[in-house]
Amino acid sequence: MNFRVRAATKEDCKDISRMIMELAVYEKMPDQVAISHKELERDGFCQNPFFQCLVAEVPEEQKSKEGFTVVGYALYFYTYSTWRGRSVYLEDLYVMPEFRGNGIGKGLLCKVAEVGKKEECVRLQLSVLDWNTPSRDFYAAKGAQDLTVSEGWHFIRFDGQNLDNLANEAPKD
Amino acid sequence: MNFRVRAATKEDCKDISRMIMELAVYEKMPDQVAISHKELERDGFCQNPFFQCLVAEVPEEQKSKEGFTVVGYALYFYTYSTWRGRSVYLEDLYVMPEFRGNGIGKGLLCKVAEVGKKEECVRLQLSVLDWNTPSRDFYAAKGAQDLTVSEGWHFIRFDGQNLDNLANEAPKD
Repeated sequence: MNFRVRAATKEDCKDISRMIMELAVYEKMPDQVAISHKELERDGFCQNPFFQCLVAEVPEEQKSKEGFTVVGYALYFYTYSTWRGRSVYLEDLYVMPEFRGNGIGKGLLCKVAEVGKKEECVRLQLSVLDWNTPSRDFYAAKGAQDLTVSEGWHFIRFDGQNLDNLANEAPKD
Repeated sequence: MNFRVRAATKEDCKDISRMIMELAVYEKMPDQVAISHKELERDGFCQNPFFQCLVAEVPEEQKSKEGFTVVGYALYFYTYSTWRGRSVYLEDLYVMPEFRGNGIGKGLLCKVAEVGKKEECVRLQLSVLDWNTPSRDFYAAKGAQDLTVSEGWHFIRFDGQNLDNLANEAPKD
Protein backbone atom coordinates (compact mmCIF):
# COMPACT_ATOMS: atom_id res chain seq x y z
CA MET A 1 0.00 0.00 0.00
CA ASN A 2 1.23 3.46 -0.92
CA PHE A 3 0.95 6.16 1.67
CA ARG A 4 2.50 9.52 2.34
CA VAL A 5 3.18 11.21 5.68
CA ARG A 6 2.98 15.00 5.60
CA ALA A 7 2.45 17.95 7.93
CA ALA A 8 -1.25 18.61 8.53
CA THR A 9 -2.83 21.80 7.22
CA LYS A 10 -5.84 23.68 8.53
CA GLU A 11 -7.91 21.92 5.88
CA ASP A 12 -7.13 18.54 7.48
CA CYS A 13 -8.83 19.44 10.77
CA LYS A 14 -12.16 17.86 9.86
CA ASP A 15 -10.40 14.57 9.06
CA ILE A 16 -8.32 14.80 12.25
CA SER A 17 -11.44 15.55 14.31
CA ARG A 18 -13.18 12.49 12.81
CA MET A 19 -10.22 10.26 13.69
CA ILE A 20 -9.93 11.71 17.21
CA MET A 21 -13.46 10.42 17.78
CA GLU A 22 -12.64 7.02 16.24
CA LEU A 23 -9.63 6.71 18.58
CA ALA A 24 -11.73 7.70 21.63
CA VAL A 25 -14.24 4.98 20.73
CA TYR A 26 -11.36 2.47 20.60
CA GLU A 27 -10.15 3.74 23.99
CA LYS A 28 -13.70 3.24 25.32
CA MET A 29 -14.18 6.90 26.26
CA PRO A 30 -16.06 8.51 23.33
CA ASP A 31 -18.08 10.75 25.67
CA GLN A 32 -14.84 12.47 26.70
CA VAL A 33 -14.35 14.27 23.38
CA ALA A 34 -15.39 17.88 23.85
CA ILE A 35 -13.55 19.63 21.01
CA SER A 36 -14.28 19.87 17.30
CA HIS A 37 -12.37 20.79 14.17
CA LYS A 38 -12.94 24.45 15.02
CA GLU A 39 -10.82 24.27 18.20
CA LEU A 40 -8.18 22.28 16.31
CA GLU A 41 -8.03 24.97 13.62
CA ARG A 42 -7.73 27.71 16.24
CA ASP A 43 -5.19 26.00 18.51
CA GLY A 44 -2.99 24.24 15.96
CA PHE A 45 -2.78 26.83 13.20
CA CYS A 46 -2.16 30.08 15.04
CA GLN A 47 0.95 32.16 15.74
CA ASN A 48 2.26 29.98 18.59
CA PRO A 49 0.44 26.69 17.99
CA PHE A 50 -0.42 24.47 20.97
CA PHE A 51 0.30 21.34 18.92
CA GLN A 52 1.73 20.02 15.66
CA CYS A 53 0.21 17.27 13.56
CA LEU A 54 1.22 14.85 10.82
CA VAL A 55 -1.27 13.00 8.65
CA ALA A 56 -0.97 9.83 6.59
CA GLU A 57 -2.62 9.99 3.20
CA VAL A 58 -3.34 7.26 0.64
CA PRO A 59 -3.95 7.77 -3.09
CA GLU A 60 -7.53 8.34 -4.25
CA GLU A 61 -7.78 4.79 -5.67
CA GLN A 62 -7.06 3.34 -2.22
CA LYS A 63 -9.56 5.49 -0.33
CA SER A 64 -11.53 4.06 2.60
CA LYS A 65 -15.01 2.52 2.33
CA GLU A 66 -16.45 5.91 3.29
CA GLY A 67 -14.27 7.76 0.77
CA PHE A 68 -11.52 9.10 3.06
CA THR A 69 -7.91 9.44 1.87
CA VAL A 70 -6.51 10.86 5.15
CA VAL A 71 -6.35 7.63 7.12
CA GLY A 72 -4.05 8.26 10.09
CA TYR A 73 -2.56 11.03 12.19
CA ALA A 74 0.08 11.75 14.81
CA LEU A 75 -0.54 14.77 17.02
CA TYR A 76 2.37 15.97 19.12
CA PHE A 77 3.87 18.98 20.92
CA TYR A 78 7.15 20.01 22.49
CA THR A 79 7.75 19.59 26.20
CA TYR A 80 10.78 20.12 28.41
CA SER A 81 12.77 18.02 30.83
CA THR A 82 14.70 19.97 33.45
CA TRP A 83 17.19 17.09 33.48
CA ARG A 84 17.62 16.58 29.74
CA GLY A 85 16.10 19.51 27.86
CA ARG A 86 13.86 19.50 24.81
CA SER A 87 11.47 16.61 24.34
CA VAL A 88 8.60 15.75 22.04
CA TYR A 89 5.35 14.29 23.35
CA LEU A 90 3.13 12.16 21.14
CA GLU A 91 -0.43 12.80 22.31
CA ASP A 92 -2.22 10.66 19.71
CA LEU A 93 -1.14 8.08 17.15
CA TYR A 94 -3.95 6.56 15.10
CA VAL A 95 -4.48 4.61 11.91
CA MET A 96 -7.96 3.66 10.67
CA PRO A 97 -8.60 -0.06 11.25
CA GLU A 98 -8.92 -0.99 7.55
CA PHE A 99 -5.46 0.52 6.86
CA ARG A 100 -3.55 -1.17 9.69
CA GLY A 101 -0.76 -3.65 9.05
CA ASN A 102 0.79 -1.55 6.29
CA GLY A 103 3.44 0.26 8.30
CA ILE A 104 1.48 3.51 8.47
CA GLY A 105 1.57 3.73 12.28
CA LYS A 106 5.28 3.04 12.29
CA GLY A 107 5.77 5.63 9.54
CA LEU A 108 3.96 8.28 11.58
CA LEU A 109 5.87 7.41 14.77
CA CYS A 110 9.25 7.48 13.01
CA LYS A 111 8.44 10.78 11.34
CA VAL A 112 7.63 12.36 14.71
CA ALA A 113 10.98 11.05 15.98
CA GLU A 114 12.73 12.55 12.96
CA VAL A 115 11.03 15.93 13.38
CA GLY A 116 11.86 15.87 17.09
CA LYS A 117 15.52 15.10 16.45
CA LYS A 118 15.70 18.06 14.06
CA GLU A 119 14.51 20.24 16.95
CA GLU A 120 17.25 18.73 19.15
CA CYS A 121 14.77 16.76 21.27
CA VAL A 122 16.39 14.00 23.31
CA ARG A 123 13.19 12.16 24.22
CA LEU A 124 9.96 11.07 22.60
CA GLN A 125 7.31 10.35 25.20
CA LEU A 126 3.70 9.20 25.22
CA SER A 127 1.11 7.53 27.43
CA VAL A 128 -0.72 4.29 26.93
CA LEU A 129 -3.54 2.51 28.79
CA ASP A 130 -2.50 -0.61 30.66
CA TRP A 131 -5.07 -2.86 28.92
CA ASN A 132 -3.90 -1.71 25.47
CA THR A 133 -1.51 -4.60 24.97
CA PRO A 134 -1.09 -4.22 21.19
CA SER A 135 0.18 -0.65 21.61
CA ARG A 136 2.33 -1.45 24.65
CA ASP A 137 3.93 -4.35 22.78
CA PHE A 138 4.45 -2.18 19.67
CA TYR A 139 6.34 0.48 21.65
CA ALA A 140 8.28 -2.04 23.74
CA ALA A 141 9.42 -3.85 20.59
CA LYS A 142 10.94 -0.59 19.39
CA GLY A 143 12.89 -0.19 22.64
CA ALA A 144 10.65 2.16 24.64
CA GLN A 145 10.81 2.08 28.43
CA ASP A 146 7.65 1.93 30.53
CA LEU A 147 8.52 4.48 33.22
CA THR A 148 5.43 3.72 35.28
CA VAL A 149 6.68 0.15 35.67
CA SER A 150 10.43 0.85 35.91
CA GLU A 151 10.51 4.04 38.00
CA GLY A 152 7.00 4.35 39.43
CA TRP A 153 5.82 7.56 37.75
CA HIS A 154 2.13 8.34 38.16
CA PHE A 155 0.00 10.74 36.14
CA ILE A 156 -1.83 13.41 38.13
CA ARG A 157 -4.59 15.70 36.87
CA PHE A 158 -6.48 18.71 38.14
CA ASP A 159 -9.52 19.81 36.14
CA GLY A 160 -12.99 21.27 36.56
CA GLN A 161 -13.79 22.65 39.99
CA ASN A 162 -10.44 21.51 41.46
CA LEU A 163 -8.55 23.56 38.91
CA ASP A 164 -10.80 26.57 39.49
CA ASN A 165 -10.20 26.28 43.24
CA LEU A 166 -6.43 26.34 42.74
CA ALA A 167 -6.57 29.34 40.43
CA ASN A 168 -8.78 31.22 42.88
CA GLU A 169 -6.24 30.72 45.66
CA ALA A 170 -3.29 32.08 43.67
CA PRO A 171 -1.27 34.73 45.55
CA LYS A 172 -1.95 38.27 44.42
CA ASP A 173 0.78 40.05 42.46
CA MET B 1 7.03 34.48 56.09
CA ASN B 2 6.79 36.96 53.24
CA PHE B 3 7.28 35.68 49.73
CA ARG B 4 6.44 36.76 46.25
CA VAL B 5 5.70 34.62 43.20
CA ARG B 6 6.76 36.16 39.89
CA ALA B 7 7.62 35.15 36.33
CA ALA B 8 11.24 34.05 36.02
CA THR B 9 13.66 36.12 33.98
CA LYS B 10 16.80 35.03 32.16
CA GLU B 11 18.79 36.22 35.19
CA ASP B 12 17.05 33.63 37.38
CA CYS B 13 18.40 30.67 35.39
CA LYS B 14 21.38 30.09 37.69
CA ASP B 15 19.06 29.89 40.69
CA ILE B 16 16.65 27.63 38.79
CA SER B 17 19.52 25.39 37.70
CA ARG B 18 20.74 25.11 41.31
CA MET B 19 17.27 24.12 42.49
CA ILE B 20 16.79 21.63 39.62
CA MET B 21 19.81 19.81 41.03
CA GLU B 22 18.48 20.00 44.59
CA LEU B 23 15.17 18.47 43.42
CA ALA B 24 16.99 15.70 41.53
CA VAL B 25 18.92 14.85 44.70
CA TYR B 26 15.59 14.60 46.56
CA GLU B 27 14.24 12.37 43.77
CA LYS B 28 17.35 10.19 44.16
CA MET B 29 18.52 10.72 40.57
CA PRO B 30 21.12 13.54 40.67
CA ASP B 31 23.24 11.87 37.95
CA GLN B 32 20.33 12.38 35.52
CA VAL B 33 20.74 16.17 35.29
CA ALA B 34 22.49 16.95 32.03
CA ILE B 35 21.54 20.58 31.44
CA SER B 36 22.81 23.81 32.96
CA HIS B 37 21.63 27.40 33.23
CA LYS B 38 22.88 27.96 29.67
CA GLU B 39 20.35 25.55 28.16
CA LEU B 40 17.64 27.02 30.37
CA GLU B 41 18.48 30.52 29.12
CA ARG B 42 18.45 29.35 25.50
CA ASP B 43 15.28 27.23 25.66
CA GLY B 44 13.14 29.30 28.01
CA PHE B 45 13.91 32.83 26.89
CA CYS B 46 13.79 32.62 23.09
CA GLN B 47 11.17 33.53 20.49
CA ASN B 48 9.00 30.44 21.02
CA PRO B 49 10.09 29.22 24.45
CA PHE B 50 9.97 25.52 25.26
CA PHE B 51 8.88 26.25 28.83
CA GLN B 52 7.67 28.95 31.23
CA CYS B 53 8.82 29.37 34.80
CA LEU B 54 7.68 31.07 38.00
CA VAL B 55 9.97 31.69 40.96
CA ALA B 56 9.25 32.33 44.63
CA GLU B 57 11.37 35.04 46.19
CA VAL B 58 11.81 36.07 49.84
CA PRO B 59 13.05 39.46 51.11
CA GLU B 60 16.79 39.90 51.61
CA GLU B 61 16.42 39.68 55.41
CA GLN B 62 14.90 36.20 55.11
CA LYS B 63 17.54 34.83 52.74
CA SER B 64 18.69 31.20 53.02
CA LYS B 65 21.73 30.03 55.00
CA GLU B 66 23.75 30.21 51.79
CA GLY B 67 22.43 33.66 50.92
CA PHE B 68 19.74 32.81 48.34
CA THR B 69 16.52 34.80 48.01
CA VAL B 70 15.04 32.77 45.12
CA VAL B 71 13.87 29.78 47.13
CA GLY B 72 11.37 27.91 44.94
CA TYR B 73 10.26 27.48 41.35
CA ALA B 74 7.50 26.03 39.18
CA LEU B 75 8.47 25.13 35.62
CA TYR B 76 5.63 24.40 33.20
CA PHE B 77 4.61 24.35 29.55
CA TYR B 78 1.46 24.09 27.49
CA THR B 79 0.24 20.77 26.15
CA TYR B 80 -2.87 19.70 24.29
CA SER B 81 -5.60 17.16 24.81
CA THR B 82 -7.41 16.07 21.65
CA TRP B 83 -10.44 15.46 23.85
CA ARG B 84 -10.46 18.67 25.86
CA GLY B 85 -8.04 21.15 24.29
CA ARG B 86 -5.44 23.35 25.95
CA SER B 87 -3.72 22.07 29.09
CA VAL B 88 -0.84 23.12 31.25
CA TYR B 89 1.77 20.64 32.44
CA LEU B 90 3.75 21.26 35.62
CA GLU B 91 7.14 19.67 35.05
CA ASP B 92 8.77 20.72 38.35
CA LEU B 93 7.50 22.22 41.59
CA TYR B 94 10.15 22.80 44.23
CA VAL B 95 10.68 24.74 47.46
CA MET B 96 14.00 24.68 49.32
CA PRO B 97 13.69 22.53 52.49
CA GLU B 98 14.31 25.37 54.95
CA PHE B 99 11.44 27.37 53.42
CA ARG B 100 8.81 24.62 53.43
CA GLY B 101 5.66 24.81 55.50
CA ASN B 102 5.03 28.46 54.62
CA GLY B 103 2.59 27.98 51.75
CA ILE B 104 5.19 28.70 49.07
CA GLY B 105 4.61 25.41 47.19
CA LYS B 106 0.89 25.97 47.28
CA GLY B 107 1.39 29.56 46.11
CA LEU B 108 3.45 28.39 43.11
CA LEU B 109 0.94 25.65 42.22
CA CYS B 110 -2.03 28.00 42.46
CA LYS B 111 -0.27 30.62 40.35
CA VAL B 112 0.38 28.06 37.60
CA ALA B 113 -3.32 27.17 37.73
CA GLU B 114 -4.24 30.86 37.47
CA VAL B 115 -1.89 31.44 34.52
CA GLY B 116 -3.25 28.30 32.83
CA LYS B 117 -6.86 29.39 33.25
CA LYS B 118 -6.00 32.74 31.65
CA GLU B 119 -4.77 30.78 28.60
CA GLU B 120 -8.06 28.83 28.60
CA CYS B 121 -6.45 25.62 29.80
CA VAL B 122 -8.93 23.07 31.13
CA ARG B 123 -6.40 20.80 32.84
CA LEU B 124 -3.30 21.08 34.97
CA GLN B 125 -1.27 17.89 34.86
CA LEU B 126 1.95 16.58 36.38
CA SER B 127 3.74 13.37 37.29
CA VAL B 128 4.85 12.10 40.64
CA LEU B 129 6.90 9.12 41.82
CA ASP B 130 4.93 6.44 43.65
CA TRP B 131 7.15 6.52 46.76
CA ASN B 132 6.79 10.31 47.06
CA THR B 133 3.89 10.13 49.51
CA PRO B 134 4.11 13.75 50.77
CA SER B 135 3.64 15.07 47.22
CA ARG B 136 0.95 12.53 46.32
CA ASP B 137 -0.97 13.42 49.47
CA PHE B 138 -0.53 17.15 48.81
CA TYR B 139 -2.04 16.88 45.32
CA ALA B 140 -4.77 14.45 46.38
CA ALA B 141 -5.82 16.79 49.20
CA LYS B 142 -6.37 19.49 46.61
CA GLY B 143 -8.63 17.21 44.56
CA ALA B 144 -6.25 15.86 41.91
CA GLN B 145 -6.97 12.49 40.30
CA ASP B 146 -4.24 9.87 39.98
CA LEU B 147 -4.91 8.68 36.42
CA THR B 148 -2.39 5.86 36.63
CA VAL B 149 -4.45 4.37 39.46
CA SER B 150 -7.95 5.28 38.22
CA GLU B 151 -7.61 4.72 34.45
CA GLY B 152 -4.36 2.79 34.05
CA TRP B 153 -2.27 5.29 32.10
CA HIS B 154 1.42 4.38 31.76
CA PHE B 155 4.29 6.66 30.80
CA ILE B 156 6.36 5.54 27.84
CA ARG B 157 9.72 6.95 26.74
CA PHE B 158 12.05 6.60 23.78
CA ASP B 159 15.50 8.10 24.11
CA GLY B 160 19.14 7.54 23.13
CA GLN B 161 19.71 4.87 20.50
CA ASN B 162 16.04 3.86 20.41
CA LEU B 163 15.03 7.37 19.43
CA ASP B 164 17.80 7.54 16.82
CA ASN B 165 16.60 4.24 15.36
CA LEU B 166 13.06 5.55 14.98
CA ALA B 167 14.21 8.76 13.35
CA ASN B 168 16.40 6.84 10.92
CA GLU B 169 13.44 4.75 9.79
CA ALA B 170 11.21 7.73 9.02
CA PRO B 171 9.57 7.56 5.57
CA LYS B 172 11.20 9.84 3.02
CA ASP B 173 9.25 12.91 1.89
